[in-house]
Amino acid sequence: MSNSVGDKTILVGIDGGGSKCIARLETPEGTYLGSGLSGPANPLYGLERAQNSIVTSVAYALEDAGLDQDQFPNIIAGVALAGVNLPSLYDLIMAWDHPFKSMYLTTDLHAACLGAHQGQDGAVIVVGTGSCGYLSMADEQLMLGAHGFLLGDMGSGAWIGLEAVKALLLADDDLGPKTCLTTLVCEKLGRKPLGLIEELSKASSNDFARLAPLVFAAVEQGDVVATDIICRGAAYIESIAHKLLAKNPPRLSMIGGISPLLFDWFSEDLRDKISPPLDQPEQGALYFARAELQKAAGHTGLSALAAN
Amino acid sequence: MSNSVGDKTILVGIDGGGSKCIARLETPEGTYLGSGLSGPANPLYGLERAQNSIVTSVAYALEDAGLDQDQFPNIIAGVALAGVNLPSLYDLIMAWDHPFKSMYLTTDLHAACLGAHQGQDGAVIVVGTGSCGYLSMADEQLMLGAHGFLLGDMGSGAWIGLEAVKALLLADDDLGPKTCLTTLVCEKLGRKPLGLIEELSKASSNDFARLAPLVFAAVEQGDVVATDIICRGAAYIESIAHKLLAKNPPRLSMIGGISPLLFDWFSEDLRDKISPPLDQPEQGALYFARAELQKAAGHTGLSALAAN
Repeated sequence: MSNSVGDKTILVGIDGGGSKCIARLETPEGTYLGSGLSGPANPLYGLERAQNSIVTSVAYALEDAGLDQDQFPNIIAGVALAGVNLPSLYDLIMAWDHPFKSMYLTTDLHAACLGAHQGQDGAVIVVGTGSCGYLSMADEQLMLGAHGFLLGDMGSGAWIGLEAVKALLLADDDLGPKTCLTTLVCEKLGRKPLGLIEELSKASSNDFARLAPLVFAAVEQGDVVATDIICRGAAYIESIAHKLLAKNPPRLSMIGGISPLLFDWFSEDLRDKISPPLDQPEQGALYFARAELQKAAGHTGLSALAAN
Repeated sequence: MSNSVGDKTILVGIDGGGSKCIARLETPEGTYLGSGLSGPANPLYGLERAQNSIVTSVAYALEDAGLDQDQFPNIIAGVALAGVNLPSLYDLIMAWDHPFKSMYLTTDLHAACLGAHQGQDGAVIVVGTGSCGYLSMADEQLMLGAHGFLLGDMGSGAWIGLEAVKALLLADDDLGPKTCLTTLVCEKLGRKPLGLIEELSKASSNDFARLAPLVFAAVEQGDVVATDIICRGAAYIESIAHKLLAKNPPRLSMIGGISPLLFDWFSEDLRDKISPPLDQPEQGALYFARAELQKAAGHTGLSALAAN
């Protein structure tokens, strides 16, 4: 049995990344309606798949909210996607013949930052499969890192896993120390180093990120190679944090799967300045859509929301 | 006008790598007949293309020698290919229904080493797009490095170029120094760093290796970032050299496009121990084929060559 909100506007916040896409439906007044989850939505790795994931996540969210699927033309979408900091991808997504009433597009980082600080000014450090820093202030936005697996992403899960494999290969050549880390990685991969090179030469950043927990496990056993990897990664992330803090954001949060593991490696001074994220990135996408609607209302002299 | 050697055996030495394939024809007695050059022959990046390149290079060499194309069934081939240190690729090539009378397969490194020392024991350091060390002694073969672009290849052209791009991106985030190197790389690529990330995220190791000369140019201008990159790369290559020298090879040579540029960065002690390569890798493939034929002759009690 489906409810209907008639031809009333619905808002959706969408957070689309490399592994999943989350949609959150709310009324214009902020009442929660429902959520949906679908597959990968990073347009860098497939525009059509990303668009399908976005539409599917909203369809599931409508179902979760008990609303009809014919509501798409009433939906104003705040869409936050990985990769759209690249102008070519931003333009491709904006040229999409989407099924929504209207669409506002921003980066997943911007939405994560808006979510962490409930739409207010602030900064975030994201350390998951990749790594970066982002600052969103009234008069300035700043992105640091986010260089991708091949070119950087120091401190990230993929980088930590890659460094572990490099250490294993050096040890196998007797050009680096054999430690419990190299044993752990060998066991996990179930391969001799030569087979490893063949297998990993085409591995994805996610494959390498899956090795990161082994490095933290080795650190707990006092492994010097693992400790050096984490120290170098944490130092880079801390340097990003200090660049962000130099802009005096009211709040700074850390998000992403590796963040809690790295937290203890920061200086006490930095740890004291990190606050927990308050809302999720898909809620950040909703803060973004509402702010864009208000700007539009300001331009026309009408309340864009009330007009619906 | 074509000569014919009738049904006499011809030997060919083939050196196949990622960018080209060279064939060298000789009589069993060692008289030079002709050479041929064709395209890429690394089976890791296309088995069929590699096989086509091998056959084409031999066809050109027959033409160069003034011999008929119907000579393939008289040819004993010594084939040296990149990538066949991986057992799966070795088996794939050995299962090939090739056009030769017989084929002996080894790695491009082994052939380079045999060539450098005219079939005698010795070791080589190869620093081109990638980097590695190889030792070939009567009772031992040893390969060091050769981990590929993603997992290592420190000191190689591709690694030097990648480090230069990483330095540029760090400088752009104001997390590393802006130097003449970062200016040179930016100018060469004709891109702002953001466009760079998009472009280079799918670049090949060859694309990065093309940046390596800029790093050496920056070193000449006293650039500290460039100097640090080359120092780290040279230290790794020197550590490979010391591992090889610990096995007491009669000779050690350096080959590959980056080798002459790195030579001055080694310790005087190491520089004194490096001798020029005496022959080319395709000649090394011929030394290999002849040695395999002699082994076969030893097994049957006949001279395999005289039998033809």
